[in-house]
Amino acid sequence: MDIQALRSANPDHWMRAAAIRALTLDAVAAANSGHSGMPMGMADVATVLYEKHLKFDAADPTWPDRDRFILSAGHGSMLLYSLLYLTGDAEITLDQIKNFRQLGAKTAGHPENFLAHGVETTTGPLGQGIANSVGFAIAEEALRARFGKKVVDHHTYVIAGDGCLMEGVSHEAIGLAGRQQLSRLIVFWDNNNITIDGKVELSDRTDQVKRFKAAGWHVQEIDGHDPEAIDAAITAAKKAGSPSMIACKTHIALGHAAQDTSKGHGALTDADQLAAAKQAYGWTTGPFEVPDDVKSQWEEIGRRGAAERAEWQSRIDGLSESRQKEIQRTFAGEAPKRLSATIKALKKQNSEAAPKVATRKSSEMVLEVVNPIMPETIGGSADLTGSNNTNAGDLGVFDVDSRKGRYIYYGIREHGMASAMNGMALHGGIRPYGGTFMCFTDYARPAMRLAALMKVPSVFVMTHDSIGLGEDGPTHQPVEHLAISRSTPNTWVFRPADTIETAEAWELALTSTSTPSVLALSRQGLPTVRTEHKNANLTAKGGYVLADAEGKRQVILIATGSEVSIALAAREALQAEGIGVRVVSMPCMELFAAQDEAYRKRVLPGGPVRIAIEAGVRQGWDRWLLGERGREAKAGFIGMSSFGASAPAGELFEHFGITPEATVELAKSLL
Amino acid sequence: MDIQALRSANPDHWMRAAAIRALTLDAVAAANSGHSGMPMGMADVATVLYEKHLKFDAADPTWPDRDRFILSAGHGSMLLYSLLYLTGDAEITLDQIKNFRQLGAKTAGHPENFLAHGVETTTGPLGQGIANSVGFAIAEEALRARFGKKVVDHHTYVIAGDGCLMEGVSHEAIGLAGRQQLSRLIVFWDNNNITIDGKVELSDRTDQVKRFKAAGWHVQEIDGHDPEAIDAAITAAKKAGSPSMIACKTHIALGHAAQDTSKGHGALTDADQLAAAKQAYGWTTGPFEVPDDVKSQWEEIGRRGAAERAEWQSRIDGLSESRQKEIQRTFAGEAPKRLSATIKALKKQNSEAAPKVATRKSSEMVLEVVNPIMPETIGGSADLTGSNNTNAGDLGVFDVDSRKGRYIYYGIREHGMASAMNGMALHGGIRPYGGTFMCFTDYARPAMRLAALMKVPSVFVMTHDSIGLGEDGPTHQPVEHLAISRSTPNTWVFRPADTIETAEAWELALTSTSTPSVLALSRQGLPTVRTEHKNANLTAKGGYVLADAEGKRQVILIATGSEVSIALAAREALQAEGIGVRVVSMPCMELFAAQDEAYRKRVLPGGPVRIAIEAGVRQGWDRWLLGERGREAKAGFIGMSSFGASAPAGELFEHFGITPEATVELAKSLL
Repeated sequence: MDIQALRSANPDHWMRAAAIRALTLDAVAAANSGHSGMPMGMADVATVLYEKHLKFDAADPTWPDRDRFILSAGHGSMLLYSLLYLTGDAEITLDQIKNFRQLGAKTAGHPENFLAHGVETTTGPLGQGIANSVGFAIAEEALRARFGKKVVDHHTYVIAGDGCLMEGVSHEAIGLAGRQQLSRLIVFWDNNNITIDGKVELSDRTDQVKRFKAAGWHVQEIDGHDPEAIDAAITAAKKAGSPSMIACKTHIALGHAAQDTSKGHGALTDADQLAAAKQAYGWTTGPFEVPDDVKSQWEEIGRRGAAERAEWQSRIDGLSESRQKEIQRTFAGEAPKRLSATIKALKKQNSEAAPKVATRKSSEMVLEVVNPIMPETIGGSADLTGSNNTNAGDLGVFDVDSRKGRYIYYGIREHGMASAMNGMALHGGIRPYGGTFMCFTDYARPAMRLAALMKVPSVFVMTHDSIGLGEDGPTHQPVEHLAISRSTPNTWVFRPADTIETAEAWELALTSTSTPSVLALSRQGLPTVRTEHKNANLTAKGGYVLADAEGKRQVILIATGSEVSIALAAREALQAEGIGVRVVSMPCMELFAAQDEAYRKRVLPGGPVRIAIEAGVRQGWDRWLLGERGREAKAGFIGMSSFGASAPAGELFEHFGITPEATVELAKSLL
Repeated sequence: MDIQALRSANPDHWMRAAAIRALTLDAVAAANSGHSGMPMGMADVATVLYEKHLKFDAADPTWPDRDRFILSAGHGSMLLYSLLYLTGDAEITLDQIKNFRQLGAKTAGHPENFLAHGVETTTGPLGQGIANSVGFAIAEEALRARFGKKVVDHHTYVIAGDGCLMEGVSHEAIGLAGRQQLSRLIVFWDNNNITIDGKVELSDRTDQVKRFKAAGWHVQEIDGHDPEAIDAAITAAKKAGSPSMIACKTHIALGHAAQDTSKGHGALTDADQLAAAKQAYGWTTGPFEVPDDVKSQWEEIGRRGAAERAEWQSRIDGLSESRQKEIQRTFAGEAPKRLSATIKALKKQNSEAAPKVATRKSSEMVLEVVNPIMPETIGGSADLTGSNNTNAGDLGVFDVDSRKGRYIYYGIREHGMASAMNGMALHGGIRPYGGTFMCFTDYARPAMRLAALMKVPSVFVMTHDSIGLGEDGPTHQPVEHLAISRSTPNTWVFRPADTIETAEAWELALTSTSTPSVLALSRQGLPTVRTEHKNANLTAKGGYVLADAEGKRQVILIATGSEVSIALAAREALQAEGIGVRVVSMPCMELFAAQDEAYRKRVLPGGPVRIAIEAGVRQGWDRWLLGERGREAKAGFIGMSSFGASAPAGELFEHFGITPEATVELAKSLL
């Protein structure tokens, strides 16, 4: 690569891009850790994007109508931090750059959306950014259809590396974007031919251009160091009418001794080599120093969108007050005030009618009344619409020619669906929910974890939540998935027992602002256990006394979901023998754990025997069974200790001993 | 579709294929559950494959040199069961067909490899079969290179549906197969344009032909109901010199009222419609009855490979005794006798040298001595070779022109890697291991679960197992992944404390015949804690007393991996104050749980205080902390209750309070 030719061809551009490269080298060297090569390779693309195309105003990184810039190759975080610092972001200061990767800094090793407003999404786990971006682009289309072009009218730009494109989730994302013809989505592929292990050819020879074309994308191939080519490609991409991929041939670690090698992918910390690279760039200032003129140019870029933002604001100000309020409410992620009354009415009606329905059907009943009053919901399923009962409340189908539709046929793409949902939630203005079978949370796990880490309230509607799904057998029967979901911090795992608890769980999920929810719902019909209407949302406490002991309390049965009615039946049998039994319904362990100790002790007082009943593994239950500090009770568990089997559901519950009879027997043996 | 034209064009073929369709209709109707449409659509392809190409002998479904047939679209299990029954498989009898999807039957809802020898792999979770098949094909190439064409020389055939091809893992599998030019791999795509939600176009418009070509595959498009076209395509595919995809245009639920509809995908149970379909087929026998001549034709197909198998056996018999023994040992999955002594020697050497190394480095030291004596290992990494330390012991690289190489650059494909590993293990003759970061077990989870369900001893080498990885931050720091891995039945999760335990863990993983292993290994250097050499494999007990209390035992500290040395330091401090402390190292909870109660009580006697120390979430620990029935001890936990952060590792352990000082303090507060 002839650096000098690049420098002389576009000297101003060169120095702006060199600022990114120099800051990256300095920050990684200071941290003695990080990834230098990617920002150095993609600095030209990013510079042109920010200078000529990206609609943003550094003074307000939360402007709802900004273009979104997603760094899917999140290990190159210094690219993003450099751009934010250079354009004058208030949070990513020079001090932050100097503290790259240090405890408490906003400049974490990988970009974390919850640390700085300028970071649109957390990236690092490869492929997530590009998959999120599909959700960002869907959100833009949906909100533009809802509020009009004067309110919403922007693009989503992504930088993705070879790693992102090798990950399976990228296939799901690219296929979904192609199917939906998301023309506001523009992906730059950092085609540097290097991965950690060596040249890409070591592990992959996919023709990415053909691959994207096969998925219905517009594709261009350019020299990623030629600012004019970059500019022209972005201009063409905006006009493409379909999602667009720009393959940018770049040199990783451009200008450094490690250029074009896998060493260049990592932390370049050798002082001499760093100095040599800066010299080649014509970069003469000291560490972390950006020449004033270069910084001024960048700050001007940072102010480029100020007028446009002001115009946008005046357009908003010109709207009716109610319209403004609705836009504000929607982007703030606030549930409508009517939601609470709607849920209460549904609860009252169903506690009286006491239907015997599967909780997946209960969930549909909730959606039927909620979706009409929450125009911000976008629902969908990974090709299990009729099983997940997710299409309810007259949503219409979101499609190329019907962007007001609010139901998405995601296809058999659990992972891509979950990532896209996160993208919608991060974009703002959308409350996404999506369904698959509980067992296939496995496929969506990386995105579900990121929802929790990123603090976005995606709602994962996971039906067929136990061996109760029956004949499909152990590949489809979750046994460990409640435990898995509960193990992730900042996640609410709801396993409601009936329609009432399902409505309460939905209310909590739809009013959450920073915690994702997993709704574990039954395939099989369940009796209504909450037949006495209460306005209060009991599920909000996580666990509560559903039926107390008559006479002296000797046993506490704790159960969730489909096993609550088993607990009630066991209670009845034991009470008939004079053994006092309390039944605690525990639809959400995390919310129960969040109650104060006095409440927890009131629900689960020390006592001779506690038994938990859940058609899943015991892991996670001992805390409640044995007491938080131990010594509280003799404990037993009715549940699964192996994979399931293929047979009708009723036979499986018998076979695995998850029955009232087995519970009664265990209780007696422990007393 | 003109059924009569199909019938009259190839009447004999038609009736053979109709047998599959009729059995499918009968079995699904009897079970009142299942998927009729796929077997009905793909019956012609399967019939021609079995009749003219598949190398197999129904008398021995375990013949090592048979062609493998993988039903990736596992919901169409009746296709496979029909083929097995019709060709005379000893296990899948007519009774089994009649008991489709019933408790205890071998004919489970989805094919389960552990229920019948004729089932090569468990499928159902979509995309897994096609991803497994890449491993099957790799195993064939590797074993052919090792033992020669006279011993190993076969193909892997796959039927994949639209769901399989939409799943992200298919992208990883197809890319890997294309890169490795696995010319013995032939995939039939059941191109029926129907998913559960409706037409494929609802969610996908990917041009699959172009997509496979972009990945380096040979592609053909045929009418999937034309037996001559099917035969010709398979013949061409075998000669292609690359993996081959045959796009078979088919009609789901062919000949049934629900043909070409999403209803046809599911259970077709209407008696009148069933009768009408059979009439259209010219199928006049009663339920589950196959006309004698048709059954005879199929049984002849089942015997077609008998001579070839006999020839193969005589070639084997002609080999030297030692060669025969080695082939036998390899395919039986038996570790070499030398393994035990090799591990002992390594343990002795390192307990004396007591190096301070990361356990990922310890793992490399094990592989350096194990790989040379176990030619059946195939190692690899999802693009983290230098970090996972998986390339050790002079393996050579497995590549198109070096099939004797035993190290695979899997690329950034954690899921595809894990699925391919399972395929290799299922094929037999290969003991696969593969690495990524512990946090990215999330990406591989569906395949890791299937390894456990299928009882294959894949070894997942998961390094960077805690916040100890430092600056990469919370996206890369596992906190819940030990709990997640432990929650899955039939999985050994090893978190060794030093080189000695790492060697012991590897010995167990490499001698396991039916349980996969997860090795959770540290990034950071750890002191040797087992400085006294013992021949016995203490890790085999799961947990053991590493250092006992001096004086009266008041506290038991239980720790794993990098936290064992913290426990030892805390013990030292407490002992100095006269508080007796036992330290239990617990490298594998599952193996500890498998010990008899007497042993468990000996290691963890009732006592005033127990504290567990692990840089992960508490979930899963309470069983050991509080006692299996409760009431045993006052308990505390030193670990994580949130996601991690980006900072140098040492600072993070301080920040999150995972230190000897915090342990001492907690112990005193509990006493």
